[in-house]
Amino acid sequence: MALVRCGTEILTEQGFHATGIEEVLKRVGVPKGSFYHYFESKQAFGQAVIDNYAEYFAKKLDRLFGDTSRPPIERLKAFVEEATRAMERYQFQRGCLIGNMGQELAGLNDDFRARLESVLQSWQARVAGVLAQAQDRGQLSADADVNAIAEFFWIGWEGAILRAKLTRSVAPLDRFANLFFDRILPS
Amino acid sequence: MALVRCGTEILTEQGFHATGIEEVLKRVGVPKGSFYHYFESKQAFGQAVIDNYAEYFAKKLDRLFGDTSRPPIERLKAFVEEATRAMERYQFQRGCLIGNMGQELAGLNDDFRARLESVLQSWQARVAGVLAQAQDRGQLSADADVNAIAEFFWIGWEGAILRAKLTRSVAPLDRFANLFFDRILPS
Repeated sequence: MALVRCGTEILTEQGFHATGIEEVLKRVGVPKGSFYHYFESKQAFGQAVIDNYAEYFAKKLDRLFGDTSRPPIERLKAFVEEATRAMERYQFQRGCLIGNMGQELAGLNDDFRARLESVLQSWQARVAGVLAQAQDRGQLSADADVNAIAEFFWIGWEGAILRAKLTRSVAPLDRFANLFFDRILPS
Repeated sequence: MALVRCGTEILTEQGFHATGIEEVLKRVGVPKGSFYHYFESKQAFGQAVIDNYAEYFAKKLDRLFGDTSRPPIERLKAFVEEATRAMERYQFQRGCLIGNMGQELAGLNDDFRARLESVLQSWQARVAGVLAQAQDRGQLSADADVNAIAEFFWIGWEGAILRAKLTRSVAPLDRFANLFFDRILPS
């Protein structure tokens, strides 16, 4: 749906409060009256945008992590590489919708907070899954705590995206990824 | 100044766009007309709030990192402990003004972006300084890249604060800190 697709782009760039519904409608060419035909409120629209982004992102992770032509750790590296190129492509303006809205809304709205956390949990479970495969293949020590490492990955990766937006460079993404793969992962 | 002090609290909790100047004025009991006596715009007010927070935080870091009664690494651990207790005390509603405003404004406003990044750089330099002292004392390997590790620390710590806000728990702060001190720092 065009409204949700466009909303995902605008909210990822500008955040929730800075974005007016009028702006989304204008870009999509939808008259104002029809917005409330689809969504009962801006909050409901925000939830639809989060769901859309979560689904898009889960598919991306499943595609990359399910690529059995590569060893598991290289699949996680492929995600980091693809996400880094995407940050560059959008001139460090977009980042991660979930991280952006999390910072903005965690303290203001409990429904958003719970939903955003559950999205991160679902990504974390996918990373834990690919790390468990790395254990099966002997790429990662059998006693490594894959859930703890997956949680650490998303904590640091979201922090690196914030910093890449502030510096407008890939340096923070590279910094995090290099130390993560060199020092955290071999555990 | 009461306006800036109150603004620091409100902006740390709610972000920039969600906070109306009226709300700050009402809390402080200042009539609307006098706001523009002190600040020419909401943006100028935001910059004053950032400067105030940066100064407060730099003093905190200097106090903790300058405490020569503890070995250098324990001073960094003392910061993590103090910041963790502060997150708890405010029920995970406040987090870090710089991280919050960074997420919200990096893509929208270049003056804010540059100022927020320079604040993080100044904190990073302080962490690099305490790590260099750890090297002098033999607490950290002489060939460790203290600037890289300090950058990694702030990337991950800001990510951990975001996640602590989303989960309303100290778990993400502990997760990041434990792996950081166990695996990144001994380098």
